[in-house]
Amino acid sequence: MDYTHLFSSDTGSFFRSPVRDIFRRVDLNAIYSFAGGYPSADTFPLEDFRRLMSEVIDEVGAKAFQYGATQGVTELREVLSSRYGVPVERIQITSSSQQGIDVCTRVLVDPGDVILTSNPSYLGALQSFRSYRADVRGVGYGPDPDEFEAAYRMAADKAVSEGKRLKFIYSIPDFQNPSGETLPLEHRRRLVETARRYGMLIVEDSPYRELRYEGQDVPSIYSIAPDITLHLGSFSKIMAPGFRLGWIFAHPDLLDKIYVCKQSLDLCPPVFDQYVAARFVADGSLDRNLSKSIALYKGKRDVLLEMLEQTMPHDTDGEDIRWTHPEGGLFVFLKLPESFDSVKFYDVALDAGVAYVAGSFFHPDGSGRNTMRLNFSFMTEQRIREGIRLLSSLIRKELHL
Amino acid sequence: MDYTHLFSSDTGSFFRSPVRDIFRRVDLNAIYSFAGGYPSADTFPLEDFRRLMSEVIDEVGAKAFQYGATQGVTELREVLSSRYGVPVERIQITSSSQQGIDVCTRVLVDPGDVILTSNPSYLGALQSFRSYRADVRGVGYGPDPDEFEAAYRMAADKAVSEGKRLKFIYSIPDFQNPSGETLPLEHRRRLVETARRYGMLIVEDSPYRELRYEGQDVPSIYSIAPDITLHLGSFSKIMAPGFRLGWIFAHPDLLDKIYVCKQSLDLCPPVFDQYVAARFVADGSLDRNLSKSIALYKGKRDVLLEMLEQTMPHDTDGEDIRWTHPEGGLFVFLKLPESFDSVKFYDVALDAGVAYVAGSFFHPDGSGRNTMRLNFSFMTEQRIREGIRLLSSLIRKELHL
Repeated sequence: MDYTHLFSSDTGSFFRSPVRDIFRRVDLNAIYSFAGGYPSADTFPLEDFRRLMSEVIDEVGAKAFQYGATQGVTELREVLSSRYGVPVERIQITSSSQQGIDVCTRVLVDPGDVILTSNPSYLGALQSFRSYRADVRGVGYGPDPDEFEAAYRMAADKAVSEGKRLKFIYSIPDFQNPSGETLPLEHRRRLVETARRYGMLIVEDSPYRELRYEGQDVPSIYSIAPDITLHLGSFSKIMAPGFRLGWIFAHPDLLDKIYVCKQSLDLCPPVFDQYVAARFVADGSLDRNLSKSIALYKGKRDVLLEMLEQTMPHDTDGEDIRWTHPEGGLFVFLKLPESFDSVKFYDVALDAGVAYVAGSFFHPDGSGRNTMRLNFSFMTEQRIREGIRLLSSLIRKELHL
Repeated sequence: MDYTHLFSSDTGSFFRSPVRDIFRRVDLNAIYSFAGGYPSADTFPLEDFRRLMSEVIDEVGAKAFQYGATQGVTELREVLSSRYGVPVERIQITSSSQQGIDVCTRVLVDPGDVILTSNPSYLGALQSFRSYRADVRGVGYGPDPDEFEAAYRMAADKAVSEGKRLKFIYSIPDFQNPSGETLPLEHRRRLVETARRYGMLIVEDSPYRELRYEGQDVPSIYSIAPDITLHLGSFSKIMAPGFRLGWIFAHPDLLDKIYVCKQSLDLCPPVFDQYVAARFVADGSLDRNLSKSIALYKGKRDVLLEMLEQTMPHDTDGEDIRWTHPEGGLFVFLKLPESFDSVKFYDVALDAGVAYVAGSFFHPDGSGRNTMRLNFSFMTEQRIREGIRLLSSLIRKELHL
């Protein structure tokens, strides 16, 4: 039977995650995988989890397995409130921060409405935005704050002149996925000014914020403009992704719509997992685990950067080959000569046993075919060394170097 | 700041669950609550959970806390496949069966498309359908299969004559929520015939199917017409709702769209919880727990029916007062005289310390103000006795009996 005529119009804009489809095709442990954004399994404190789970069964009991409140379990909202200094009534727990992105889009965007993002941006967000038929516009910019603001204003003006409705700016200000870059404070202020000027909101997606390996924290966009910012957080990178828990900080008038939406989406987040997460934060396990994760990931990042420095060509035919130097997070972004096609090259690399994500998937405007995202959290240092050596040799061959 | 102009058109059709809002207002343990559809906390086998969780940590290890496959963990899909005789490739795990309803609607329904439901039907489904601006039409019918089919055909013909697109029939065939009634086999066949005649699908929502206290199982609609049925199942009533796990059985061409949609919704269901659920089914804990739950709920149902028989007036002014006699599930549906307003009466009852859900909330056409849904799974037999005695006396007073 052909079901095509039965599908909704939104389905015409669904697109598959090439990252998730890689996971369907290959066993990540059998190859050198710089694809994905998986935290290292070594950071999961299994014995802490076992102890906290047993405690929740003893102390919370059956209530931890019953239906829970749609806004999330009070204990968890309270520990997040005191950790991040945000009032409880401004906190909604989500069943993963991907759900945070999705529910914000659902509540704010009609087909054709404009979302401004950096170019490149997070693939899962682009998937969600497009699935609601948003008009996603990637904004390219350099390091200068005036140019940065001008680029966003130009994109906004263009959308307005086309009669489009502007809804929000989507930003991953800390150790961006995929670029690894951090937005300086002045840029954050300019983003807020621009949003205010055009009556837009900002969706600040910050799953890596606490994974900083050097340098100083930059104030969150939410802390600069809590009235117009929906801040998304996640337990995936600081505890474990298997719990599927995240949060939204936002003005209560915005959260109220999200709350009603979440009722019909899935009633409430996983309840037992929330109690475990609340204790993980409250008893200091989170901070202990964070220190260990930071030490581990810093080492991996350093190895990746060192190996790129040693083995990757730095230029060819007068064109630079460059990569970012992230102060935190999970990703380094590699830029190859304009003629390099990282989508086509992907099969060559995979056949040889090394995977990455082609950069063009992250670019809303389809550019960036000469870029790739390299993850450094998943593999051991030894495997990162071997993997980069292999990848560099394949790229040299491709470039006839 | 006023955010109104920023909200999507869908939000205009969001409506709050009066059931979930009751839980925000009152502590369910402090009153006689026939509201909600909560399973009894006494059915949660805490020691089984503790043991299985520890086993998963020992035997699956870190993988249980990593990101998982979007379609669900293979082990869980395999145990469901062998338990229910459905091929693995036709099984999608969902983050609750409420998500199953939501994702089916998202994938199938454009604003204005028609969904036929029984009248009354499950409130959470109505919330989800309306949130996508579906045109939901409740179909009323009697016990005769010809009349039943005629009612559905009349509703479908009417929609077609209005130029509407028919998408699916939503049915809860086993111990329906809220009515408690079970659709006989002949009615299921007629539903399938009707769906085929009009090129519609059927969404079969069956969270209570295994909670049967008397009588014989009726074949699922999915087993009669697997090519046009999306069957939704849930761990909430047979294991515990706090895990937020359910499943969809459907044709792979339908599941494929659901799979891509779920990628952007929340990437994957809770991973650790899925491993626990897989073992809960595989090692026989589920069946042991089901036997205990059935014995417990049968007792509670019997007490509720007995107390209604003893204390509730059977008629007034020549009008019958009737209630359903469910063979399973969690609910009895009470029909009072036409003039009775169960929405208005709700505050009287709550002030006196007893809660129910007004029947009109379940009726897509807004009728049924003289009905109420009574849950019997949540409270102890003793509290059911006291609660029905109180409710009956309040109703008698309201009816001047």
